[in-house]
Order: sequence, then structure tokens, then C-alpha cells
Amino acid sequence: MTDQEVAETTEVPVAIVGAGPSGLMLAHLLARAGVDAVAVESRTRAEIESTHRAGILEADNARALVETGVSDRILRDGHEHEGIELRFDGRGHRIDFAELVGASAWLYPQTDVFTDLADARARDGGVVHYGVRDTEVLDVEGDAPRVRFTDSSGIRHELRARYVIGADGSRSTCRALVPQDRSTQFFKEYPFAWFGILTHAPVSAPELVYAQSEHGFALISQRTDAVQRMYFQCDPDEDVDAWDDARIWETLQQRVAGRDGFSLREGPVFEKTVLRFRSFVQQPMRWGSLVLAGDAAHTVPPTGAKGLNLALHDVQILADVLARTVHSGDDAVLDEFEPRALQRVWRAQNFSYWMTQLLHTTPGSTAFDHRRQVGELDNVVGTRAGRTYLAEQYTGWPTRDT
Amino acid sequence: MTDQEVAETTEVPVAIVGAGPSGLMLAHLLARAGVDAVAVESRTRAEIESTHRAGILEADNARALVETGVSDRILRDGHEHEGIELRFDGRGHRIDFAELVGASAWLYPQTDVFTDLADARARDGGVVHYGVRDTEVLDVEGDAPRVRFTDSSGIRHELRARYVIGADGSRSTCRALVPQDRSTQFFKEYPFAWFGILTHAPVSAPELVYAQSEHGFALISQRTDAVQRMYFQCDPDEDVDAWDDARIWETLQQRVAGRDGFSLREGPVFEKTVLRFRSFVQQPMRWGSLVLAGDAAHTVPPTGAKGLNLALHDVQILADVLARTVHSGDDAVLDEFEPRALQRVWRAQNFSYWMTQLLHTTPGSTAFDHRRQVGELDNVVGTRAGRTYLAEQYTGWPTRDT
Repeated sequence: MTDQEVAETTEVPVAIVGAGPSGLMLAHLLARAGVDAVAVESRTRAEIESTHRAGILEADNARALVETGVSDRILRDGHEHEGIELRFDGRGHRIDFAELVGASAWLYPQTDVFTDLADARARDGGVVHYGVRDTEVLDVEGDAPRVRFTDSSGIRHELRARYVIGADGSRSTCRALVPQDRSTQFFKEYPFAWFGILTHAPVSAPELVYAQSEHGFALISQRTDAVQRMYFQCDPDEDVDAWDDARIWETLQQRVAGRDGFSLREGPVFEKTVLRFRSFVQQPMRWGSLVLAGDAAHTVPPTGAKGLNLALHDVQILADVLARTVHSGDDAVLDEFEPRALQRVWRAQNFSYWMTQLLHTTPGSTAFDHRRQVGELDNVVGTRAGRTYLAEQYTGWPTRDT
Repeated sequence: MTDQEVAETTEVPVAIVGAGPSGLMLAHLLARAGVDAVAVESRTRAEIESTHRAGILEADNARALVETGVSDRILRDGHEHEGIELRFDGRGHRIDFAELVGASAWLYPQTDVFTDLADARARDGGVVHYGVRDTEVLDVEGDAPRVRFTDSSGIRHELRARYVIGADGSRSTCRALVPQDRSTQFFKEYPFAWFGILTHAPVSAPELVYAQSEHGFALISQRTDAVQRMYFQCDPDEDVDAWDDARIWETLQQRVAGRDGFSLREGPVFEKTVLRFRSFVQQPMRWGSLVLAGDAAHTVPPTGAKGLNLALHDVQILADVLARTVHSGDDAVLDEFEPRALQRVWRAQNFSYWMTQLLHTTPGSTAFDHRRQVGELDNVVGTRAGRTYLAEQYTGWPTRDT
């Protein structure tokens, strides 16, 4: 990749490729367990902080940020939601997480999670190289893998590690190091995408509203008192420039309209994006001295907000297993990671798929499909068993059950 | 249809076309409410009693047979099952209905339900004409509909009724009286069928076993101590003659095999049938003076055993509404029937679809589909919320929730 000579060599037990939330949380947890790690990231901190991403954290993950000493800012700036609303057939139905499963979810943007983790790394003296280029991961099949990169000031580095963690997101280059003939990539494409907007408008609903309608899905979310995040189902090839504010609001209002008089409070739209998604899992998640975590190993459709949560669970399991591996020097301990991670991964894959199917209109679907979907929604909201089934999955699975 | 002259005319508030379980249960319940009904059926009693059909009754329906005075034979000859087993990934997982939702299901063949109802009608002096031919239903759009038929001794009859109930099964001729342009028929075809066998063999499991495997679905059911009913997923065009006993048992054993050593106790197979199925709902269920009930209005895939149960719920609602309609003379009261019936119909349609998708292997499905299915099964059996969600739907929805 580069002929530039290595000017600086660092020996470190764990090298982490990617300093998004999963890479940084892993570095943070390893440091607490007495294991040094260096993280490298091709984007600058400013670039990451300007990328707006969804922000629903399961209560367990919110608690992990606070209790492991990352930051307690979520308790002040985040919003604890004790439920969501499902809208269909012209009415809203609340799923009361607190009453059903004694759990909640926190509205806290992913960029804030990143900022808290980046600040914590800086505060604790953790080494994170942002804005690197020409990253190369070498020799992962042996027990002396290396990561080479050029830092933002032009110096070529080599990390000599015992383990390399690929936490480099859905377009992971680390993933490509697992030989194709030893690898299974599970995936599913969806015939729809989300049209996401940010708008300067007052809050329309106190909690997230997931709306199913004959016109398609919509999600009403919040950012602040004055800025709202909303989405509606669209064609994956939709052109955002074809949508002015009037058309966007007409579409959103139509999808949430109902006999109860609910409507959205409108304002100027200042960001429009089409968010494509798919279901994806890479197995194995480990190859030699390389372990994949978070989006590098799996992505889910955004319905149900499991992506970031799953990444944070991966690294909590990985930090535990990796610290024991490093401290014991017994490479076999690391084998515990994948099966523990995968159980939640596949439950979350199923939940994300289910929520997507439950709420979206699939092109080409029949009258039966649509009416059955309403029957399913009726069973989910109209019975305590159905509400509990959804609530437990949305808020994350309690440890006693997994 | 026939030029034969009507020899006998009967005035009766309610004429019922079809004397299967739904038609007879309706006649029974109407009689208890003081409303006379005459039922006509093209099959003979012996023909109906020799048709073997599934036999799982929700506890509420078992109770209805006993408490409305049909018969308490189910308490002696039926078997109360307090759970089912789901098998996948080489292991069995019990869903404990009693502990989860305080409910159960009764193993009691549909032919026994029919016999009890037919005996009760005979005992109570209800008029049921079996083995009729040339049935004609006339004038359902007005308030003086008629049913003409030729009885088994060749006499032509006319029933002059206020209401006609189409309880004539999935190939209903009454259904065709709802004008096509006022009718919606919701349906879904499945790319698989069930290969059903009866075998002289001892019991292999105390409760029903629903098995998902990479080779396809299997269901292990019981009939008596010495006769068992089993099914396995097959192609809808499968030829039963291509299957000898050895091939049948090899297929069944493969689908239930597991690390726990479970296997089936084999015996000679004495009945083989391919059972095709689809999801179907006719709306409206009422047209003028005609009301459709049970399989005439809707059928479900057999996974989850909702067909007979749904038919019995239809007629319990209909008997209540129809008795009040007849006693009050207010035709508008009958409008209550369809929305009350449809809520359960669509919940049951969804449940039957869900159980089918959860357990069958769909031709052309991807590695993702299969692995997600296992993730869903893991969430269903591995969490109390999941087990409860399934148990409540399998045993029927409690009244407090509907």
C-alpha cells in the first residue's frame, strides 16, 4: 500500500482499527482491565462528530457509559424514554416499557456517545490516532500481527500487537482479511430505504412514534426542543432534490394521520438524506489474531435501533474475554467471544427484521399481506404478551434470560 | 339446479348449510337460546365420521363443549396438554402453557367433536338432514331467504328462513352468493404442503412436538396409545405412492434427530395423505340475510391448529348475536358479528402464518433466512416473553385482552 518507511514502532497488546463508538468503548474497557490498546481511525474527530446518526441506547448501554466511568453526561443531556408509540389503523398505541419489563431506552445521539468516549480516552491518556491514512493490517494468521499507518502529521507507524480488533464499521477493510473460502456472509436486501430529515420544529410527540400505514412507514423522533428527526419509507433510489418541504410534510402527515387527530408540528427542513440499509452478518467474527466487532461484523436495518446497541454489546463481551486472554496468555480463552456475541447478534437481527416487516409496506405485497400485518400489530399492541415481547426486545434482553 | 317440485316446506328462523362442527355447534347454541334452526349437509354422517382431521382444541373451546351441554366425553377421552415442544438445532424446548398463561390445549380429534355434536343434536331433537343433494340457497339479498334441497330419501324440501348461515366449509357454495364486486378474498399460497401419516406405533412424545430442521418441518402428534399421527413438510405435488414406510421413517427421524438422543418409535404406516393448505379470508362475512362462518369464511395453514378453533369461536359469537337479532327482530343487531369475529380471525391468521414461517424451510430461502429463523426460535424459547407470546396465541386469546 505504501513504500514509506516505518519511523515509529509501538508494542501494544491490542491494536484497534477504527475509533468509532465500538473501537473507543473497547479501548476504554480494556484500559480499565489493565490492558493497553492503541486505536487508529481514518476519519478526523471533527468528521466523526459532524456525522449525524440515530441515537437510541438500551438502558444497559446507557448504564455502561456511566458505570464504567466514560461519562455521566447522558443522565443530564439524554432523555430516558419509558415507552414508544406504535400507530396503525389511524390510532396510537403505547408500549409501556417501564410497566411491562421494568426497562427503558435513552434518546442520546450517537455523536454524543462518540464525543463522551473520545473525551474519556483523552482524559485517561489513551492513545487514539485520528485522521490516519494508508492503514495496513498484516500477519493476522500468526501470533504477531502488525498494523501500519501514516498519522495525520505524516509519520509512518507500526503497531506490533498480540491481537488486532477490526472495529472499522460496515465498510470494514479488516473483514476482507478473513479468507473468502472460510467465511460466510449472511445478508438480506430490502426493497425500501428511509428518507431522513432534520427540521427546525417543536417536538411533536414525547417519545418515538413508529407509524405503519397503507402509504408506508414513518418514524417520528426527537433531537432537541427545537430540532426534530423524522424518517419515512422511500424507494432506495429516491432523489432528495425532488422533495421540497411541502412534499415532505404532506408525506409525513399522511403517514401518521388518524382518527385521534394526531398531527406533526412542522418547520423548515435543513437536512435530507436517503438511508439505505440491509441485514448483514459475517461469520466467523474471529480469524487468527483478528477479531471483528460492531458494524464490521454485522449491520441491521434501523427499525428498532439495534445497530449501535449491538456494537456496544460486542465490545463489552470482547473486553471481558480479551482481558482474560491477554492476562492468562491462553489464546483459547478468546474462543468464548464469538458464541457469546452471536446469540445476541442473531436475536437482534431477527428483531430488526421483524420490526421492519411489521411496519413497512413491501412493494408488491398483497391485500392478505397488509391485512395480516394489521392483525399482527393488533396482537402485539392488544395483548400484554405481545407488548411484552416487543418491549423486551426493544429495550435489550435481560441477562437472566440470555 | 333441479326441477323437482318442493314436497315439504318448513318455516324456521335460521337455516344452516353445512353440518360439520361449526354448523352443528351453531344449531346447538341457538337451540339453547330458544332459536330453532335446521341444518342440511351433503355428506352422510358416516362420511364425515370417517374423515380424519386434526384435533387440538383450545381449552376455552373444550370447556364450551362441556359447559353448554354438548358432551363431557372430551374430559374422559381427550388428553389435556399443558405444553408443546419446539425442536430446533438438535434440541427440544418445552413451552409450558400452564405455567406461562394458565391455559392448556386438548388433544381430541375433530371427528370426535363432530360425533359429540351430532349426538347432542339427535338427543335434543334438533333437525339435521345429512346426505342431501341439489342444495339451492335463494333470495339472500332480501329478508325471506330460502334453502331448497333433496333429502336422502328423495323428498324435495324448502326451508323458509329469516337467516341462512353458510357453514359449508372451505369449498363453500354459499360464499359464491356474495357478489364478486362487493367481495374481497384475501389469500396466500405456500410453496410446501404436509405429508401426513397414521401409524400403528407407540407414543413417541407425551405432547405435540414441532420440529424445525435444515431438512424441513415435522410435527409429531398422538392419536391413541397405539396409533400416532405425524406430518412432515413436503412438496405440494408430492406423490404418496413414492413413499414406502422406510423412506417415511428415515425422513421423520432425520427431522427430529438431535444431540439429546430423541427419536421416534416406528410402526407400520396405514394412511398417507398430502395436505395442501393456504391462508384465506372472505370479507364481508355477511351479505343480506346470509352469514358465513368457519371454513366457509376463512382457512389457515394447519401449523398452530387454529382452523377448528376459529370456526368454533365464529359460531359462539354468531349464536349470541343471532339470538339477540331474532328475539329483537332488529336486523341491525347482526352487524355486531363481523367485527367481533374478524379481530380473532386476523390474529389467528397472523399466528398461523407466523408459526408456519417460523418452522418450515422455504424453497429458495437464503443462509440469512435460515439463520435468522434460528435466532427467532432462540428468542421465542429462550425468553419468558417469547414463550408467553407463543403460548397465549397457541392456547387462544383470553377474553380480557380481546
